[in-house]
Amino acid sequence: MTYCVAMKLDAGLVFLSDTRTNAGVDHVSTFRKMLVFERPGERVIVLLSAGNLALTQAVRQQLVEARDTETLWTAKTMSDVARVVGQAIRDVYTRDAKSLEAFGVDFNCSFLLGGQIAGARSRLFQLYSAGNFIEASSVNPYFQIGESKYGKPIIDRLVTPATSLDDGAKCALISMDSTLRSNVSVGLPLDLLVYEEDSLRVTRFASLDDENVYYKMIHDTWGSRLRQVFDELPEPQWATSSVASVPASLPPRAEPPEGMPGADEPGSVQSLAQTVSLKMPS
Amino acid sequence: MTYCVAMKLDAGLVFLSDTRTNAGVDHVSTFRKMLVFERPGERVIVLLSAGNLALTQAVRQQLVEARDTETLWTAKTMSDVARVVGQAIRDVYTRDAKSLEAFGVDFNCSFLLGGQIAGARSRLFQLYSAGNFIEASSVNPYFQIGESKYGKPIIDRLVTPATSLDDGAKCALISMDSTLRSNVSVGLPLDLLVYEEDSLRVTRFASLDDENVYYKMIHDTWGSRLRQVFDELPEPQWATSSVASVPASLPPRAEPPEGMPGADEPGSVQSLAQTVSLKMPS
Repeated sequence: MTYCVAMKLDAGLVFLSDTRTNAGVDHVSTFRKMLVFERPGERVIVLLSAGNLALTQAVRQQLVEARDTETLWTAKTMSDVARVVGQAIRDVYTRDAKSLEAFGVDFNCSFLLGGQIAGARSRLFQLYSAGNFIEASSVNPYFQIGESKYGKPIIDRLVTPATSLDDGAKCALISMDSTLRSNVSVGLPLDLLVYEEDSLRVTRFASLDDENVYYKMIHDTWGSRLRQVFDELPEPQWATSSVASVPASLPPRAEPPEGMPGADEPGSVQSLAQTVSLKMPS
Repeated sequence: MTYCVAMKLDAGLVFLSDTRTNAGVDHVSTFRKMLVFERPGERVIVLLSAGNLALTQAVRQQLVEARDTETLWTAKTMSDVARVVGQAIRDVYTRDAKSLEAFGVDFNCSFLLGGQIAGARSRLFQLYSAGNFIEASSVNPYFQIGESKYGKPIIDRLVTPATSLDDGAKCALISMDSTLRSNVSVGLPLDLLVYEEDSLRVTRFASLDDENVYYKMIHDTWGSRLRQVFDELPEPQWATSSVASVPASLPPRAEPPEGMPGADEPGSVQSLAQTVSLKMPS
């Protein structure tokens, strides 16, 4: 699998992708999932891909080699760019989907597409296998593709459009680190690109492996600080509840059927009515 | 969906389940997914369920009403108990799977099963739709079913068999809180049962809603402390890399094809060679 995340912040865009691909556990490789279209001073477009590698490469190939009137180099707005990418997905579908179906392979690919063209603000889109797409907004300032769930809670807790680019990059790296720990199909090195609004060129890009001192710091420190916070949270206190008569305070309990061993033994329901309360450390 | 988690710790077992069920967003209900079989002094068995509600209820029903020789009340060991539950899943499959298939509904149910029978240590199992099962071990001391990915990283980081029951319960609640924030198909109230090894009775059970002072503390404090740790981590520092000649330090870049606008403009590849370094706050 893959994990890619992109954020649309007031200050610009943040893109982060891993490089692991696998077709079964015995066929693990490294491919880069980020592709940059840059004409300094005029446009910067960044594409991240997830899904079937042959499909995402076919889509990328078509975008790179396109000689149509409208390409990623000529499209006038970012939504035109998103349409061009969506059309490339549909072209690959038309060409490949039937053959894949014969082998029981789903047409599965998705993309994050962000960037800025001179004269307008930066924008961020997520494209689906069907070539349709949605755009990030101030209410939902980030998108993820691939193994997205492990790294979602931390972004939900921390990122808003007002988040700085550095904080966005830091949060994306923590989100990636959590994903790496919990899912072996996501792997280093990472491609990190931070786009500063209105710069219209790529100024901040890094490929991070486990030797990178910043990623190492995130990896080592976040876990240990998390444990420290965890240890500082008060333990639950168990106390007999004053709401013992409320049925919800009892667990759903099975009773042995009539005539079965134990059917006539007294239960211990009264001992179950507990509640978890909080005693702050004094 | 659902989120259930159970841990097999040296000190006993921890079980936590939500109560949200949904069949599409317009059919959201509350059902309890925990079922307790208790004969004080002799056995405590706890079953958590996820998946198609009609199926999990059918399995539970069969287990509760069973009048066979071997039931959850008579099975001699916890692995016998797991076999009995597995057989119940298979019986429901035999009865229902064909009819469901006609409506395009998958046979989808999974269970966490833990407990202790006098004379042996407590054990924890995860059962699949096929009725087969795996057991928790010291290397993998917990299982999750349902919407498991959001809440996995925090458990991976914090829980080992040596974790105390109170810390296990605290971590399970944080894992649940992260899941609740990121997935609307998981909901309060929560059923929390903490089983103390060799007690052979249920002594700690609580149903937690958003009024519960301990859960509220977890919900409010964890997020704000996380943000504090996040803010304390150093920001990334961007610096021109000394490894500018290493291809991996450049992002994969597309070039305009010959004859296309921009094909003869100089790229800015040399400006891309950056690395993220770390400057500790002084």
